[in-house]
Amino acid sequence: MTDIYRPMEIEAESFRIISEEIRRMGRELPAEYASVIKRVIHTTADFSYLDTLYFSEHAMEAAKRALKTGSRVVTDTNMALAGIHKSSLRKLGGEAVCYMADRDVAKQAERRQVTRAQVSMEKAARQGDKCIYVIGNAPTALLRIVDLAQEGKMCPAFVIGAPVGFVNVTEAKQRLIDSGIPCIVPRGRKGGSNVAAAIFNAILYETAGR
Amino acid sequence: MTDIYRPMEIEAESFRIISEEIRRMGRELPAEYASVIKRVIHTTADFSYLDTLYFSEHAMEAAKRALKTGSRVVTDTNMALAGIHKSSLRKLGGEAVCYMADRDVAKQAERRQVTRAQVSMEKAARQGDKCIYVIGNAPTALLRIVDLAQEGKMCPAFVIGAPVGFVNVTEAKQRLIDSGIPCIVPRGRKGGSNVAAAIFNAILYETAGR
Repeated sequence: MTDIYRPMEIEAESFRIISEEIRRMGRELPAEYASVIKRVIHTTADFSYLDTLYFSEHAMEAAKRALKTGSRVVTDTNMALAGIHKSSLRKLGGEAVCYMADRDVAKQAERRQVTRAQVSMEKAARQGDKCIYVIGNAPTALLRIVDLAQEGKMCPAFVIGAPVGFVNVTEAKQRLIDSGIPCIVPRGRKGGSNVAAAIFNAILYETAGR
Repeated sequence: MTDIYRPMEIEAESFRIISEEIRRMGRELPAEYASVIKRVIHTTADFSYLDTLYFSEHAMEAAKRALKTGSRVVTDTNMALAGIHKSSLRKLGGEAVCYMADRDVAKQAERRQVTRAQVSMEKAARQGDKCIYVIGNAPTALLRIVDLAQEGKMCPAFVIGAPVGFVNVTEAKQRLIDSGIPCIVPRGRKGGSNVAAAIFNAILYETAGR
């Protein structure tokens, strides 16, 4: 075993190994996206993300601008919320919220027979203007964001579209990509709250430090 | 897109697709472990877990027995804690805790120059007797559990050993497997808080329902 036990040293060594393996695979990452791609691999130990991460044009600038102006961050799971590095976010005056466990959201979802994720996004649209959306679970959240944006009822600053799964996931991601909303998306079935948080934190660390 | 929007229907359809794909791969899962294996694939969309999930002998019985007696559940991340299905756990009189953000843990880790995960496990050993450990991030947490158990300072009822990463991860998992402690482990580099929570929830749902 490696004789490294300090968290930041473990992380540095992990990124060294990831960079080395990418190099050995003969791959070269675009400098602009390298931190995001490597952090997703760090979080998953899954190098298939080398081939699936989609960045819309100027996605990184849009995300960093939104972070610098203290935009509210809305997640679709408490796991993604837990994964976001709060102290870095606070440095920029930002805050992260998740409405999924709110009683009004649950009630309305039940009454309308839709997902809580969908109702959460509607709540976010009513409460804030230019939010950052970090979606790691629900394709219905992504679909609602795209619909609301196209109806002029929401103006997302930036969306991380990383639901995981087998039903409507690839289709929802494609709709987000086609919408022209600034976004980062792991195409295909893979993703998750951990992946969504990793993408977010990579950009956050570049913007605010740690 | 599939015209399914109710959460439980989406989940049922996802599991149907997963079962179908496993069958088409010519694989048959041991009935005892099928719910865990499929839920991990549901959480990750990653079928490589078919080949890596290790179950110690009688792991499922040990886990279910601990759940039925209301054992405390200790996680090494707030993400894993967030992913655990609390209302099912409450039915069994159990509770889940994570000491990672505790001030005394942070202080002691800083002073001793070790990871907070390691100090968290020591805190758990002092506070409870037969806990369930759900480890999704820190190999140092696993190593500390094995050491404390071998020193007779901890008696874990059951351990989910699912750290993810590149430094000491596969080695720490192997030490857990070799220790004889009842455990479930995704061998190799992959894992994560989401995987750890998925393994836990699969067993929880079998024991308590939802």
